Amino acid sequence: MATLTSAAHPLYSGKSLLERYQEMRSTTMHLVEPLSVEDAMVQSMGDASPVKWHLAHTTWFFETFILAEQLAEYRVFDPAFRMLFNSYYKTLGGHPIRQQRGTFSRPSMSDVLNYREHVDESMFRLLKQELSPELLAFVELGINHEQQHQELILTDILNAFWTQPLRPPYAPPAEKRGSAATVASPLRWIAHSGGAVEIGARPEGFAFDNERPRHTVLLLPYRLAARLATNAEYLDFINDKGYQRPELWLSDGWDTVCREGWRAPLYWESRGEEWWEFTLSGMNRLDPSAPVSHVSYYEADAFARWSGARLPLEGEWEEAAKDRPVEGNLLESWTFNACPSVEKGDGKEDQLFGDLWEWTSSAYLPYPTFRPEPGAVGEYNGKFMCNQFVLRGGSFATPSSHIRASYRNFFPPHARWQFMGIRLADYER
Amino acid sequence: MATLTSAAHPLYSGKSLLERYQEMRSTTMHLVEPLSVEDAMVQSMGDASPVKWHLAHTTWFFETFILAEQLAEYRVFDPAFRMLFNSYYKTLGGHPIRQQRGTFSRPSMSDVLNYREHVDESMFRLLKQELSPELLAFVELGINHEQQHQELILTDILNAFWTQPLRPPYAPPAEKRGSAATVASPLRWIAHSGGAVEIGARPEGFAFDNERPRHTVLLLPYRLAARLATNAEYLDFINDKGYQRPELWLSDGWDTVCREGWRAPLYWESRGEEWWEFTLSGMNRLDPSAPVSHVSYYEADAFARWSGARLPLEGEWEEAAKDRPVEGNLLESWTFNACPSVEKGDGKEDQLFGDLWEWTSSAYLPYPTFRPEPGAVGEYNGKFMCNQFVLRGGSFATPSSHIRASYRNFFPPHARWQFMGIRLADYER
Amino acid sequence: MATLTSAAHPLYSGKSLLERYQEMRSTTMHLVEPLSVEDAMVQSMGDASPVKWHLAHTTWFFETFILAEQLAEYRVFDPAFRMLFNSYYKTLGGHPIRQQRGTFSRPSMSDVLNYREHVDESMFRLLKQELSPELLAFVELGINHEQQHQELILTDILNAFWTQPLRPPYAPPAEKRGSAATVASPLRWIAHSGGAVEIGARPEGFAFDNERPRHTVLLLPYRLAARLATNAEYLDFINDKGYQRPELWLSDGWDTVCREGWRAPLYWESRGEEWWEFTLSGMNRLDPSAPVSHVSYYEADAFARWSGARLPLEGEWEEAAKDRPVEGNLLESWTFNACPSVEKGDGKEDQLFGDLWEWTSSAYLPYPTFRPEPGAVGEYNGKFMCNQFVLRGGSFATPSSHIRASYRNFFPPHARWQFMGIRLADYER
Amino acid sequence: MATLTSAAHPLYSGKSLLERYQEMRSTTMHLVEPLSVEDAMVQSMGDASPVKWHLAHTTWFFETFILAEQLAEYRVFDPAFRMLFNSYYKTLGGHPIRQQRGTFSRPSMSDVLNYREHVDESMFRLLKQELSPELLAFVELGINHEQQHQELILTDILNAFWTQPLRPPYAPPAEKRGSAATVASPLRWIAHSGGAVEIGARPEGFAFDNERPRHTVLLLPYRLAARLATNAEYLDFINDKGYQRPELWLSDGWDTVCREGWRAPLYWESRGEEWWEFTLSGMNRLDPSAPVSHVSYYEADAFARWSGARLPLEGEWEEAAKDRPVEGNLLESWTFNACPSVEKGDGKEDQLFGDLWEWTSSAYLPYPTFRPEPGAVGEYNGKFMCNQFVLRGGSFATPSSHIRASYRNFFPPHARWQFMGIRLADYER
Repeated sequence: MATLTSAAHPLYSGKSLLERYQEMRSTTMHLVEPLSVEDAMVQSMGDASPVKWHLAHTTWFFETFILAEQLAEYRVFDPAFRMLFNSYYKTLGGHPIRQQRGTFSRPSMSDVLNYREHVDESMFRLLKQELSPELLAFVELGINHEQQHQELILTDILNAFWTQPLRPPYAPPAEKRGSAATVASPLRWIAHSGGAVEIGARPEGFAFDNERPRHTVLLLPYRLAARLATNAEYLDFINDKGYQRPELWLSDGWDTVCREGWRAPLYWESRGEEWWEFTLSGMNRLDPSAPVSHVSYYEADAFARWSGARLPLEGEWEEAAKDRPVEGNLLESWTFNACPSVEKGDGKEDQLFGDLWEWTSSAYLPYPTFRPEPGAVGEYNGKFMCNQFVLRGGSFATPSSHIRASYRNFFPPHARWQFMGIRLADYER
Repeated sequence: MATLTSAAHPLYSGKSLLERYQEMRSTTMHLVEPLSVEDAMVQSMGDASPVKWHLAHTTWFFETFILAEQLAEYRVFDPAFRMLFNSYYKTLGGHPIRQQRGTFSRPSMSDVLNYREHVDESMFRLLKQELSPELLAFVELGINHEQQHQELILTDILNAFWTQPLRPPYAPPAEKRGSAATVASPLRWIAHSGGAVEIGARPEGFAFDNERPRHTVLLLPYRLAARLATNAEYLDFINDKGYQRPELWLSDGWDTVCREGWRAPLYWESRGEEWWEFTLSGMNRLDPSAPVSHVSYYEADAFARWSGARLPLEGEWEEAAKDRPVEGNLLESWTFNACPSVEKGDGKEDQLFGDLWEWTSSAYLPYPTFRPEPGAVGEYNGKFMCNQFVLRGGSFATPSSHIRASYRNFFPPHARWQFMGIRLADYER
Repeated sequence: MATLTSAAHPLYSGKSLLERYQEMRSTTMHLVEPLSVEDAMVQSMGDASPVKWHLAHTTWFFETFILAEQLAEYRVFDPAFRMLFNSYYKTLGGHPIRQQRGTFSRPSMSDVLNYREHVDESMFRLLKQELSPELLAFVELGINHEQQHQELILTDILNAFWTQPLRPPYAPPAEKRGSAATVASPLRWIAHSGGAVEIGARPEGFAFDNERPRHTVLLLPYRLAARLATNAEYLDFINDKGYQRPELWLSDGWDTVCREGWRAPLYWESRGEEWWEFTLSGMNRLDPSAPVSHVSYYEADAFARWSGARLPLEGEWEEAAKDRPVEGNLLESWTFNACPSVEKGDGKEDQLFGDLWEWTSSAYLPYPTFRPEPGAVGEYNGKFMCNQFVLRGGSFATPSSHIRASYRNFFPPHARWQFMGIRLADYER
Repeated sequence: MATLTSAAHPLYSGKSLLERYQEMRSTTMHLVEPLSVEDAMVQSMGDASPVKWHLAHTTWFFETFILAEQLAEYRVFDPAFRMLFNSYYKTLGGHPIRQQRGTFSRPSMSDVLNYREHVDESMFRLLKQELSPELLAFVELGINHEQQHQELILTDILNAFWTQPLRPPYAPPAEKRGSAATVASPLRWIAHSGGAVEIGARPEGFAFDNERPRHTVLLLPYRLAARLATNAEYLDFINDKGYQRPELWLSDGWDTVCREGWRAPLYWESRGEEWWEFTLSGMNRLDPSAPVSHVSYYEADAFARWSGARLPLEGEWEEAAKDRPVEGNLLESWTFNACPSVEKGDGKEDQLFGDLWEWTSSAYLPYPTFRPEPGAVGEYNGKFMCNQFVLRGGSFATPSSHIRASYRNFFPPHARWQFMGIRLADYER
């Protein structure tokens, strides 16, 4: 795992690994503050996990891959947790059926919090020592792993709160961001010349194994939409019978639309003439200027086709993003909502980082010569390289220090419960 | 609902309805004492409900059918609960999907306990007044309804604790009851002459509508096993390849065995040469003299066929039980386990009441001239008269004041999660 | 199998068993005359079988239970058929999955017809000999078994032709039977005094094992509708929102209505303002005076509740039918359709025999002391005594010599593809 | 559809389009010669179609896209066929549910053969005229479309014959091809330098739309196995517990293995110590030197990982094949079986064309700037570009005139019923 060597992320400057570990762990606890012990039990569907499970599993990761391996005097908190909070690492032995995580009333939340403290204390001790590059890499991985689950805590609690009849809000009502105008800017396009460009993470610094190796791809001249597609634009698609016209859809997408009875994005609800949307701030009247969210790849693809455009390739997206600062509506903005784009007039794309993950038309496949790490950690990414599409750029729920231009998120094409949206693309003609 | 008039149950003597209401409500709270707020959230399968839901739904029953109807000044605790805690009364409007009760993190347990207090206060006020016979009948129904859920709290928490990997016990280890000998008495049979006998509840006193009207049935001379079938006897069936021989099974039963991969009763686990059983007292080595529990109708029927016997008709069972006192290992014994039969030498059946519900070979159908009550309460029993079999006698989880000889419980033939066992029967030959 | 002794059915008088065998086998061949080799291949759902399979399986029955056992010099036609055309007799070893019978392109129809001839020749030889009572009983059983499949050939081909887009007719258009009037007579009721009555087949003569032993049942005074419920009456139920009102339905029935989207009987199709019905004579405008057909138990029960009545008990039905001649619109009328009732003015029920099987409210359970025959033939009826309801009286597809007052047909409550209808009942009040 | 202009395929030389049409149609009829009318009815699973349906659907394609559009005097054979034999073209209106094609006993095979003759006569007349380039392109497409179904006739009949208990052979026993030795040559590797190479079909000549536009891809230096992986090699994988080791599998693959209980390729059957395989020549003892067939992408990928190798990219495969003659064990060899590789000693890959389709690790996605044709014909390929992987090279069931280096076949990763095998690849190190 030599590629996972710790590195000087712009956002890390001046912070020790220990400080970064502490900050990250505090952020997790900050995120679950609004939740009751009962909220933390809910598993609303098999793809989602209870918040309590997220708190324990991320801790398990540090215990299993670092403390139990590297800290001689480490006392395992509870041997049963080894199996209990294993997500899917077959190399480590059995694990409970994913769909039954919601039945774990034991250990209690209080036990899980003790588990976190126990592991934190040992991690503090460890991080005050001189660490080998391999160990540093594992700590980085553990931090980034828990950051992924920070986002999942928000996606899963949104689904949990949507599923139960009272539909409580997680956060206070979203404040309007930017100008009073609620009308999004008309769609502009940003041209890119393409050519032979390099994508993927450089060897130095932390990145997930699936971002490597850096390699060359060939791109035709292309353009990208200057912002994410809005609710207003998506409503036009709906009103133009977008969900009733099979010719707009991939075959599997159309089958899904029919089987699931899809008529709008997940979390939309029609009330008389109006559309409302469930968000982390509860049920709100749909904001036409906000980016459309909670659409599957099938819907993003159909919308793009209806728009006379297409979705970007992951190489196109990365080329556009590679020299841009990691700024935007990311977790640290604490908006808990995707916000309308604000014109900057700099001739560049807005919202590349943050707001919503952007579906690309690239299947999630290994980069040339990619091989998973040996051992359990090799199960992290590689075994999912099938039946998924790549998403790029992070969302309002992604920590800034977690995202970068080369970052590859991935979901199956029917998934809608993530904070995912649409950026249109086209060839330059 | 004239049939539901309050009556002088032997166990009620000297107690006012108010006292009985209070005692019953206290028993419910006593049952949930060992449980955490998180335990009370678990829904381990669609047939089971979370304990928190049971606490709220039983309260909802009093609020909906009595307080909101009859107490002029009654303030509804929370209008949303009307829909939220409706189980299946279509007449009362929508209700949440049963399978999603486990997602209700809101209202919180603390809200539900406030709800119970709120309703209790109003019920106390009401029960100090002079009540009409109709209202008395509804109060009786509400008490009996919650008693049913007392038993369900135990059946559902057993399933919840079985489903999660740590398998915690609900109660302390079961004490051995009776003599030190763990070998059950050899099976004796009790003869009955049959003939034209009356079954069903008399018009006076409380009974569920499905127990009425009392009517005559014709019985051939028959005999009943003096006790419930034991784990040892059921093991003989298993060891004689009972689960591999289709000729012993009903066709639907055999299909279920094959589809579900049944090899033993629910909650049995084989560990090397031994069988263990999960009970409210946790995982225990199988007690050969204890009654076999958690078998479906299919298994009970196959075991009976293998034994050269059959299951009793509900009329046969009731005729044998009608003059017997309601005594046995019922809820108030607080054993939380089915216990071995103890020879009394009185030439009568043991364990008729308590220990385990007993499968009969009678389909759950209406008695002659039965008509459900008008209104929502008519949905209580009648609409389930299809695809179910009658069980008789109550279990260690049934309150004594709740059971009687004419009581008809019912479950579909594949159900196994109730406290249900087997009493053999045969014709006198 | 002493109970299966051959007997003097009124319809058999003067005919030898050989003649009856020959006639019965000819009738089967007559029924398949309108069908092509391709029609005989279709299996439109798991509950139905291809006609070719019916032709072979009925022949297999004679070969397996009679010829291979009793005719010393018998040469088995093809040893592979032993497994291939076993329906469900586990005692005889494996059998193909029911749902895959439609894939049997081999053996060919021509092979199957040769198989029939081969078995017929041996049966002719056998039936010219003196037979033991046991053997006679098996021959009777084989004849009655194939008669059941004669009816199934028609039910299954109706489903097969309904399923395919061209929906061809099996038979020429149905002629109007009876008077020109298409309006059914207003519903009259026939009173019966009930009491202790005997039901079930007497020991002598052929009957299936499930019709025995004859025994006494207690009936309250009751009345039966003088004819089957009509399409016009059922339309009133539909138009009164019968399929939208949960209070009319059994709980399992309502779940089925919602899950399957039922809005009318099977084979009904709404075309603008009109209802059409698919029958063995193809698509026809619904005849309001004809009996409503292809309704499940759930629908029959809901319709009865909506009508303020109920379905008859099987004892009530048999008591009414026991002294009536077996006459009516049975197979030998060759109408291939259920026909309107014709007033006879004799104060008795019309259509008891023929037209449509009548759902009773009796679960299909063993009569007192019933035990299945030992060996494979014991699997004929007994193992299905669970989750089914009894139907009585035969249909236009039932051979006259096959039906009698004590005859018990049975189907699960959701089944609709049989020729099944509704006769209302009520208690005398 | 300008890209579909008719072209001078090496195999066409000297043949008119009319001659080619006639030959192609004759080949179809030749393929169905061994089948009975009943065989042609079987649909053994939803992914497969009855042979009769293939015969009609390919004819429908000519009628719908060419004759009905272009031949003024053309009389439609039967208007009902328009809907009946539409496979999935939503633009053309409704079509029957795919899974019910096996219920079409009408139209009869004889009607379908008349349909073919009727369309052939009109096509002959049309093809004697001067045709526009657009029309020529449609005729080419129709010919290639039916050639695809020629292969599907064989794959589907293999599945149909496997499913039914008698498992008849389609063709006579396969003759041993090549030397008497049944041991395959040891695996050799052929090196390729990669670089910027062009793939995809050139603008001239017939190709499917998904093969265009021709474009440049970047390849690292790579090597390909000189032949397909053999049954012996795959047996080593099985015997090394390949199906029990999750670390060898993609996550979705492992789930499929567990859910489906896969233990070997489709059509393999273990008999004691031996493996047998069902082929178009019936059940045969597994030939260790023959290529392993009927493996899913999941199995191919796991086998490659176990081998320390990988599957080729489609670009790598095409680059290796682009200058090679289209020769090999293709349909015109009439072997009906994949055959062992025969060493040629020319330092090139064997079996690139024919024997078995080869799984690539390339997801089936559009080439840059690809847009589907407008109208119904645009549904041919584009809408399936999701959740599938590309296969290359054709099989023993692919007509020679149908395959080429740029040809892209595609199936979902769990599919196994096609004639599909494995060629290993690796990077040059």
